[in-house]
Formats: sequence, C-alpha cells, structure tokens
Amino acid sequence: MSLEQLKNRLETTMGKLASSPYLEKVLAPGFATRELYAMYMVETYHYTRHNSRNQALVATRDENLDPRYMKFCLKHAEEETGHELMAFHDLKNMGYTLSLEDLPTPLEETKVLIAYLYHVAQNGNPLARLGYSFWAERVYSYIAPLLQMASGNLGIEKKSMTFFNEHSEIDEEHAKQVDQAIERFAKTAQDWEDIGNCLETSLLLTSKMMDAVFEQFMSFKDTRTTRYTFLNQ
Amino acid sequence: MSLEQLKNRLETTMGKLASSPYLEKVLAPGFATRELYAMYMVETYHYTRHNSRNQALVATRDENLDPRYMKFCLKHAEEETGHELMAFHDLKNMGYTLSLEDLPTPLEETKVLIAYLYHVAQNGNPLARLGYSFWAERVYSYIAPLLQMASGNLGIEKKSMTFFNEHSEIDEEHAKQVDQAIERFAKTAQDWEDIGNCLETSLLLTSKMMDAVFEQFMSFKDTRTTRYTFLNQ
Amino acid sequence: MSLEQLKNRLETTMGKLASSPYLEKVLAPGFATRELYAMYMVETYHYTRHNSRNQALVATRDENLDPRYMKFCLKHAEEETGHELMAFHDLKNMGYTLSLEDLPTPLEETKVLIAYLYHVAQNGNPLARLGYSFWAERVYSYIAPLLQMASGNLGIEKKSMTFFNEHSEIDEEHAKQVDQAIERFAKTAQDWEDIGNCLETSLLLTSKMMDAVFEQFMSFKDTRTTRYTFLNQ
Amino acid sequence: MSLEQLKNRLETTMGKLASSPYLEKVLAPGFATRELYAMYMVETYHYTRHNSRNQALVATRDENLDPRYMKFCLKHAEEETGHELMAFHDLKNMGYTLSLEDLPTPLEETKVLIAYLYHVAQNGNPLARLGYSFWAERVYSYIAPLLQMASGNLGIEKKSMTFFNEHSEIDEEHAKQVDQAIERFAKTAQDWEDIGNCLETSLLLTSKMMDAVFEQFMSFKDTRTTRYTFLNQ
Repeated sequence: MSLEQLKNRLETTMGKLASSPYLEKVLAPGFATRELYAMYMVETYHYTRHNSRNQALVATRDENLDPRYMKFCLKHAEEETGHELMAFHDLKNMGYTLSLEDLPTPLEETKVLIAYLYHVAQNGNPLARLGYSFWAERVYSYIAPLLQMASGNLGIEKKSMTFFNEHSEIDEEHAKQVDQAIERFAKTAQDWEDIGNCLETSLLLTSKMMDAVFEQFMSFKDTRTTRYTFLNQ
Repeated sequence: MSLEQLKNRLETTMGKLASSPYLEKVLAPGFATRELYAMYMVETYHYTRHNSRNQALVATRDENLDPRYMKFCLKHAEEETGHELMAFHDLKNMGYTLSLEDLPTPLEETKVLIAYLYHVAQNGNPLARLGYSFWAERVYSYIAPLLQMASGNLGIEKKSMTFFNEHSEIDEEHAKQVDQAIERFAKTAQDWEDIGNCLETSLLLTSKMMDAVFEQFMSFKDTRTTRYTFLNQ
Repeated sequence: MSLEQLKNRLETTMGKLASSPYLEKVLAPGFATRELYAMYMVETYHYTRHNSRNQALVATRDENLDPRYMKFCLKHAEEETGHELMAFHDLKNMGYTLSLEDLPTPLEETKVLIAYLYHVAQNGNPLARLGYSFWAERVYSYIAPLLQMASGNLGIEKKSMTFFNEHSEIDEEHAKQVDQAIERFAKTAQDWEDIGNCLETSLLLTSKMMDAVFEQFMSFKDTRTTRYTFLNQ
Repeated sequence: MSLEQLKNRLETTMGKLASSPYLEKVLAPGFATRELYAMYMVETYHYTRHNSRNQALVATRDENLDPRYMKFCLKHAEEETGHELMAFHDLKNMGYTLSLEDLPTPLEETKVLIAYLYHVAQNGNPLARLGYSFWAERVYSYIAPLLQMASGNLGIEKKSMTFFNEHSEIDEEHAKQVDQAIERFAKTAQDWEDIGNCLETSLLLTSKMMDAVFEQFMSFKDTRTTRYTFLNQ
C-alpha cells in the first residue's frame, strides 16, 4: 500500500460524509447560530483532551517498538498537550462565564471516539494510530466551509477560533511528518491496512460525534432546553 | 520542604547503602571480574527499558495535570527512549555473542523496582516520579568508585561503558532540569513528601537489585553455573 | 429513574433499529445463506471473548465500590468466562475446519463495541456497564425472528446454535439478577442516566456491528471473495 | 517441579525470616503493646484492599488463558472482596474512632508489595500469582506465635481479631484449592519457577512491610509521635 492509497481512502470516506443530510441543513443560510459552535467546542475540548494521552500511550506499550517511532509518538504527544485548553478559552472568549468543572460531560458519541482511540493505542497495531493523525492533520481543507460559516454567518470572532486557526496553521508541517512516519515505520501490508482502518474508523466516529452535536443543536433550537446549560446564561 | 532537604534525604540513604557488606567485598582488589559487570549490564538493560515507558505513563493519566508538567514528562521520556540498547551494545562490545532474545529475564529484585516505578507513575502522586529522576540524574558521583573499578581493575573497555559514560555526561544538565521541575510543580507538603518517598524507595530498591547481582556473581564464582548463561560461551 | 424507564429506552432504541433497511433484506426469503450466520458467529466470538474481561475489570478499579457490587461483577464475569468458545464450536460444528488462529480479526465495528465497553468499565461510572447487561440479557425475544430464520431457512443445525440456545435459556434468571443489581446499587439520577446511556450506546454499536456483517455478506454474495476466507474451504 | 518443592522454598524463606532481629525484640515479654497491632491492622487494610483487585486482574488479560483458570481467579477474587473491611472493623473494635478517610496512607514498603502484585498479575506469567496465594493461605501456622502474643500479652479482644481468625479458618480449604490449581494449570518448568519466584518475592516483601511496621512502632515507643495519628486519640 502507499500514501496515495491512504489519501484515496480518506477521499472516499469524506465523500460519503459530505452527503450527510445534516450538513446541508447546517450550512443553509440562517439556520445555524453561535450556540452550535459553542456546543461543538465543548465536544472538541473533550476529545482533544485525550489526544495527547492516547498518543503517549503508544510509547508506553511493553513491546520492542522502533525507538524512533516511540520518539515520534512522544514528541507528537508533547505538541498536542494542553490543546484542549484552546477550545476551552475559545468558549470563554465567546462571552460565556464558565470553569472546567461547569462543562457538561462528553456526549456518548464523543466517548465512543475517545474509547476507540485508547483501544487502538493500547491494544491495536502500534502503528495504527498514525491513521488518525493522517486525516486529523489534513482535515482543514475539508472543513473550511464550516469554518467560513462560523466566522462569517455566525459571527464567531477570531479570539474564539484559536483552536481551529492554530491547528490549521501547524497543519501542513505536521501532515508531512505523519506521512514520513508512515512511510518509515509501516513495513507490512497488515501495517498499512491497520493504519487505513484506523483512519476510516476514527473519521467516521468523529463524523458521528458531529452529527450528535447537530442533533443537540436542533433540539435546542426547538425547545431552548439543552444539556449545555451554560448556553442559557 | 526544599531541594536541600531532598538532597539530605539522598545523602542519608546513600550513607546507609555505603555500609553494605557486599560493597566492600566487591571493591576488594582481585575479587570482582568482568562477569560482574556483564551481569549488571543485563539488569540495567531491563530496568532502563521501562524508564521511558513509566515516565511517559505519567502524562497519560486522566487527570488535569499542569500541561507544562505533562510536557516535561513527555520530553524526558523521549530523551530516555531506547537507552536500554546502549546497555545491550555495551554487553555485545564485551565480546559476547547474543541477541535481545538471549538475555535472561530480569531478576526478581529488578522486577520489584520496575513494578514500583510503574505503580508510582500510574497510581501515586503524579509528581512522585520526580524523586526517582532526582537521584538517578546525580548518582554518578556516588558510583564513581564502581566505575573506576570497572574501567581499571576489570579492564572494561570504553566501548563497553557507553551507557555509563553517556549518562554521566548528560547528568548535570538533566539534574538541573529535574530540580527546576520539582521547584515549579511541587506545591504542597504532601507533594514534597511523596517525591522524597519515591526518591528513597526507588534508591533502596535499586540497591537491592545491585545486592542481588552481587549474589549472582558470588554464586557464579563458586560454582561457574549461572542464569546468565551467555557468560559461559 | 426506574427499571420501567430503562425498558422504555430499550424499546425505543430497538424500535429505531427494527426499521433498518438491511434487516428487511436479510429476512427476505431466499436471500440469506449459512455463510451469513458463520460470519456473525466470528464477530460473536470476538466481542464475547471480551465480555467476561471487561466485566471483571469493573471490580479491579481503585475505588471504594460497594463490595456487594464488586462480587456481582466478579460472579457475572465468571459465568461469562469462555462463552466465546461456544461461538467457536458452533462454527466448527457447521463443518468448517479451523483453529482459533485461523479466525479473521474482528471487524472495525466489532472493535468499536469492544473498545467502548472497556472504556466504560475502566473509566466510566462503575455502574454503567449494567446497562449493557440489561439489554444483553433480554435481547433474545427481539432476535427470535433472526434465530428462527437461522434454524429454519438457513438450516443451521442445533449443534451449531449452542451459543444462542444456551444464552436464551439462562436469560430470564440473569435478567432478574441484573434488574436487582440496578435497583440495589443505582443511587443517583446520574447513576440511572449513565446506565441508560451505556444501554443505548452499546446496543447501537452492536447493531452497527450487525450492519457491518450484513455488508460483508452482501459483498460475499456478489463477489465470492471475503475476509472470512475459511468460508471458501 | 512439584508442590513439595514449593513447600521447601516456603520453608527456606520462612527460616530466613525467623532470624529477623526485630522478631525477637517484638516477641520479648513486655515490649509490644496494642498500638503495634493497630499499626499492623492499618497496613493489612491497605494491602488486603488490593488482593481481590489484583487477583481479578489476571482474568482480564487479553490472552487465551485456560477458562478454568480464569474462573478460579474470579471466584478467588470474589471470596477476597471486601476483606479489608474486616481489618478496618477490627481497628474500630479496639476502641479507635475513625473512618476510612482517617486512615494514614500505606507505608512505602506496603506500596512496594502492592505494586509487585499488580505487576505480576498484569505483566508476569499469568500463573505466577498462585505463588502468593500458596503461602498466604498457609501462613497461619507460621504466625501463630504472633497471634497468641496479640490475644495474650497485648490483650487484643476476639472482636478485634476477626481478620486473622476468619482467615485462619478458611485457610485449609483454600490452601487445598490453590494446590490443586497449581497442579492443574502449571505445565512447564518455567510456570513452576515463576510461581516459586512470586511465592518468595511476595513473602519477602510482606516481611519487609512487617519490619517497617516494627520500626514505626519502635519510633512511637520512643517519641510518642507517629504517622498513625489516631493512636494518640
């Protein structure tokens, strides 16, 4: 297998996701409001909080992994450390008064994503988690329309978009590093397959999480009640 | 508490260890041979293999640790990655033909040290492991007589002492970083106490491991049979 | 909350699942063949293998849980131990020659289910896993049509249905025990909510797993190639 | 190897421990007081609290263990669940007013024992933990003099000795079950060796824990200050 094939798998999966009925609705003029962005930031806080942890976990496995791959995982984990706080500060910069303790717990769909990544990191092919990084580092071109909607229609200010802006900037360099790591460490067809599986599954689970946020938002639009109680401050 | 008090605790514990009857015997002219060094390198391989892993483990805990401390742990883990291979190559450079699979499993005393460090890293005060780094980074002044004996009386060549030489060189800089981390992150009396406890216990367990190596060596001198079968190549 | 509400949540979720387009197709006369059953048995082997393990895991958590709940978990784990071998023997009794090593690895969807249950057992509300047992012990009335199809249209013999027959027999007694455990140990609204969430999520993930098996089967019908290579013996 | 050889290894190790200088001192008439017993009960609470957990942990390992051995571990774990509360109630029945939160944290030596048993249960030979049960279930004949001293010289009442009395009663039956399990499941010389190693190491670490309690007691006799602050009620 090759990076080209991973890119194709990413394209194909993204293609399926693009046809989501929610997406159309959400992008329709006048439908979404800043509360949708806030809800999404809460879930982003939650899953991002674990990215550094499950990335580091790979390097704690009691196996004789290539030390260069262990170093890659630790370095990558270090870079991701604390990024959830960007999402949290973005939320506060939207004007909500809240502390970490006030955040609602993650949605079940967010928990499923988190659970899967820990499981892969701890029990799967040690290289598999590279598949998550593979798409996560190049997702920004795909979600550009959503981010434009946020900054445009929803009027989300720059100071509340640091998580996305920061990540889209460091994007290209990171994507290159992940590509190099995959090419360097993946040796067998099974390695490539496991990386590809993790790519697709973690992307689908992330999309399920986004769908769940959309459902939370639609229910909030209807009823004005929500588990994200801080929205009703 | 203060770094000064940690240093005192280290001094006191080292003082107790210096009176070990084994130590005297081992340092007596003509007693030790290069097989003692080789045995010690095997156990060094084993516990060192876990240092990077249990250090990284601290940063995977599901707690809201200070992100700067998480980064310290990950960076430190990265630096320690693969150092066990130095011990292994030192062994091979002594002239033994062996692969990783040929190494005997760790002694029970080595396992106890490894087990304790994982337990502290996973379940103890998240800062406690700094106590292990505290003495490990400044141990070289204490073991200088042993290293001199190795290079002098035992005739261990430089190419078989890379583990020790490398570590004693990076020593001073690391020790400073660990000191700074302790001063920055330890907030409560309990933090200092837990760091001090880990310092003392991990040092005592390391010394037990060394005693066990001495016992293995003495038994080998007597009987020429040993669990380190590669010595009889 | 109450058991009644949990039952309603189960009903509602099952209702959604019943409208799956796959289900209709699969139940249509002449469509399914014994290979579908075999594929499903492979995935059943995989997730069942972890049920006892993730159930026992709850009782290893370093928290002061009610000892009676810990005992419930351990007893329940003991009862589930080795049940995956029933699924494996059912497969062999279908006439396939295969050893455990020959089984294909679990589907991604099966891994997601497994990952979620470990995550809940290890990190979630310690009572949450009761939600999985809640539906798993009373699922047989829901899947009766599928089992009838298996024994009827597909001609699966009794000796290849021990997993299902055994479990549907011990069903009622177990369901009662789980109900009692929920009523005894769930104290807060959050406990009930977390049990309900685990109920719904684990059921939805199981249904995703079944959908994935159907997709594997449809692809096999079309192409005669499959990851379940033993089917082409 | 055989049970006979395990018994010999137990005898030999016990023989070494019997020559402890502390033991003599402690058994000397008039030296020990009920505070020694109370201190020991605190540490007993701590390590016993983990026995059920690390025993169950063996059965959560992602390996294809013999299901009968998994069941043995789970059943055994169930029987040990909550036994730490006996030690706690014995303490309270001595007349001390205290809640679980008031208990001092475990001594470092107790932590080392706990850490070792988790490490063996999680990472060692899955059969190794049987070595701990092997001596723990037959220890009561060895510690009878200590228990007689407790009930005689120290005047510890029956209601404060339930932990020991209960365990010495279920002793014989359990010891037999453990013997049978060892004979049934240990297949290779390495299995027997690993069981024997765990036997010896866990016994030595338990004896270190007892020594540490004696030191705590002697320091208390001298200074009347202690980390077991409830003794000064």
